[in-house]
Amino acid sequence: MEQKLQILLDTVKKLLRRGAYPNLTKVLSKSHPADIAHLFRYLDLKQQRILFNLIGDREMAASVLAELEHATGAQLLEQLEKERIIEVLQEMPYDDAVDIIRNMPEELAEEVLLTMEDEHSEEIEELLKYGEDTAGGIMATEFFSLREELTVQEAIAALQEAQDVEMVFYLYVTDDHGHLVGVLSLRQLLTVPPATRLQDIMATDVISVRTDMDQEEVAHQVAKYNILAIPVVDEGNKLMGIITVDDVIDVLREEATEDIFKMAGASEEELLYGYKSFKIARLRLPWLITNLFGGVITGYLMWLFKVTLKEVIALISFIPVITGMGGNVGGQSATIVVRGFATGRIDISTMRQVFLKELRVGLIMGTVCGLTIGVIAYGWHHNPYLGLVVGLAMVTAMTVAATMGVLAPTFFKRLGIDPAIASTPFVQTANDITGILIYFGTATLFLSNLR
Amino acid sequence: MEQKLQILLDTVKKLLRRGAYPNLTKVLSKSHPADIAHLFRYLDLKQQRILFNLIGDREMAASVLAELEHATGAQLLEQLEKERIIEVLQEMPYDDAVDIIRNMPEELAEEVLLTMEDEHSEEIEELLKYGEDTAGGIMATEFFSLREELTVQEAIAALQEAQDVEMVFYLYVTDDHGHLVGVLSLRQLLTVPPATRLQDIMATDVISVRTDMDQEEVAHQVAKYNILAIPVVDEGNKLMGIITVDDVIDVLREEATEDIFKMAGASEEELLYGYKSFKIARLRLPWLITNLFGGVITGYLMWLFKVTLKEVIALISFIPVITGMGGNVGGQSATIVVRGFATGRIDISTMRQVFLKELRVGLIMGTVCGLTIGVIAYGWHHNPYLGLVVGLAMVTAMTVAATMGVLAPTFFKRLGIDPAIASTPFVQTANDITGILIYFGTATLFLSNLR
Repeated sequence: MEQKLQILLDTVKKLLRRGAYPNLTKVLSKSHPADIAHLFRYLDLKQQRILFNLIGDREMAASVLAELEHATGAQLLEQLEKERIIEVLQEMPYDDAVDIIRNMPEELAEEVLLTMEDEHSEEIEELLKYGEDTAGGIMATEFFSLREELTVQEAIAALQEAQDVEMVFYLYVTDDHGHLVGVLSLRQLLTVPPATRLQDIMATDVISVRTDMDQEEVAHQVAKYNILAIPVVDEGNKLMGIITVDDVIDVLREEATEDIFKMAGASEEELLYGYKSFKIARLRLPWLITNLFGGVITGYLMWLFKVTLKEVIALISFIPVITGMGGNVGGQSATIVVRGFATGRIDISTMRQVFLKELRVGLIMGTVCGLTIGVIAYGWHHNPYLGLVVGLAMVTAMTVAATMGVLAPTFFKRLGIDPAIASTPFVQTANDITGILIYFGTATLFLSNLR
Repeated sequence: MEQKLQILLDTVKKLLRRGAYPNLTKVLSKSHPADIAHLFRYLDLKQQRILFNLIGDREMAASVLAELEHATGAQLLEQLEKERIIEVLQEMPYDDAVDIIRNMPEELAEEVLLTMEDEHSEEIEELLKYGEDTAGGIMATEFFSLREELTVQEAIAALQEAQDVEMVFYLYVTDDHGHLVGVLSLRQLLTVPPATRLQDIMATDVISVRTDMDQEEVAHQVAKYNILAIPVVDEGNKLMGIITVDDVIDVLREEATEDIFKMAGASEEELLYGYKSFKIARLRLPWLITNLFGGVITGYLMWLFKVTLKEVIALISFIPVITGMGGNVGGQSATIVVRGFATGRIDISTMRQVFLKELRVGLIMGTVCGLTIGVIAYGWHHNPYLGLVVGLAMVTAMTVAATMGVLAPTFFKRLGIDPAIASTPFVQTANDITGILIYFGTATLFLSNLR
């Protein structure tokens, strides 16, 4: 944590202990909403509630709430009086309010929507219809647009009057029916004669997205074209909202965290539970139990080969390295593919190339590791055939693992399952099993030479 | 790939095969630079060179180059005539040109800098002094700033004349000595009387970063405060450049990819090598070889227990599951910590809490898995002591693994080594070793009951 924030946190904690609420109110009113939201990570729910209630300014309270992760925000709101909840939600941009309401217990959410002023609840219910992870689900509806026949002078006047709209830097231009027909930058307004019509200076090749586009794809579009906001249109090209780059940053970070956690069998919901061990354990356990049974199957296979193993006990020395290396190589390939899908660097059309590449890479690395372990095995147990068996098994196991690392996530993606969650445990168990089969299969084949 | 891009790619490939260069030039001139850059991923270096040389417009060529990953861009430039290299580099924003020059072979870079016009090479050499991953290394120096005593009217006039500056949406205000003293938005200019002085309307609490701040930290600041650009100042608060949000997006994506790859023992340099299997294998091998020796050590420990194992061959059935589960739990904890460091969610001040949480979570999950595997072991080999030994070993191994998953990345971070690269192979090997020791240690203790 930065020093500035550490000092703020220490001050806030001290004042909380002392119950010095007027001082706290003062400290909070001088802090940036993003900083207050950041502090909340280090406080328990009770402290968060006290602090949040001390923020006098409604707009400030709404900003703090918008900066919190939605699930955290929803958790906090549950602790508050109903009037306060509604007061703050009504102050928020609709897209943020929707995200929080989605995360509240259903009953409370319904009650809040019923009690809210109609103009707010209608807008929010409209937005609730869109999928949470789509362009419609994250777009801001308080945008600023102008009609194409306006002059620059009229546009500037409209801009001066506009309030409470999302950051304005692009001006979207619509026709009489609200269809998106053009875009211009604020700066352009300053550089042309006041009587110019917008339709004569606007750019008409507007990059836009559909309300049902997945948020990750939206983020890719914004990142790719280096734009600060992207307009969202319905199937008839009617302008419905805009998504600004700060939301895109949040999407990119969330999606990366989600993928990283999923690949390790953790879950991004963990972040919500903070330090609650039982809840976190419950989130991680299904994945572990799956792998546990995978491990038992591997063990069962080893058990089937117990005669081979009893005859040549030296074989045991290389079980960990064979299964371990298979898992590593498979994990590398799966990671490349999963991240490739996520960043749009790999798609189905290049899958064949990727597969062949990973096959070659696996073969090369398998040969290097197979030679190394073969020499180690020979030197250690003074049996050239053991070296051969271990080396051969390593090459085969690593090559098979590399290809499986490509096939598993691809297969899951085709099925419409998130490749990040599906690939690693699957790849790991599959590699353990094939590794053991290959190793003991080879060993049984050469058994007479190994004795 | 989107359909639009797929069609473009097919067209371009067809025209390349036919050598229909005039048609290609036409197609290229109508495409977005970001789309052209995207196509380059699917083309080999020779095709890239032909295509790049067909882009007639210098500015367009510069934009395409800026959109490519820097290493790819540098690789492409090496293929071109020296005049073309310089022509394009001179057209680029300095920050992009610097990134590419950093990635070129040293000799070529020096030659290019010598041949360039002085005004360009001086600016570039100035930027080359900053670390590649610092605010100074990624900032744009062609920014737009105004003096505090100017009036709004004068500011608008200056804005109308300004060309070739990074996207203008915030106006940074400086004093006579170039120190950053304030900021205002373009929209504010439109809403106050023309004779107002900038110093009377600007906000003075500007969020800025120092030239030597790490780029990842810069990205966190921009993401946290939801701003579109952040000014970069030197130690004396003199305004040196700005970093815009589109660069921040690139930083966040790069850092996430880097972490994900590192944790799996792959490297982000792989992206540069495309499908070159030998180069990729060489990048991944050091990590694999390290783990290979870790596996051999684990195998050696098993070998030490060969008497125990020979006496109770049933023990072998649970080796994969004990080592596997330790690795999984350790990997989960390590991932939480590594990503926590990367997103700023965990820092040294909360380490104790995180450690205790992971310890508790490990213990809970260990107990669940230990009971499960204990029952399986008892049912399978009909020996209650075997169930006890396997179950106990599982609880211990998983709890130890969870704490090690926290300690290893923390330790590496303290040493200044990237926790992402250090933790997974280390954690994995450490867990295999402790898992085996715990398992066979417990088994040897209960040996008389197991027989």
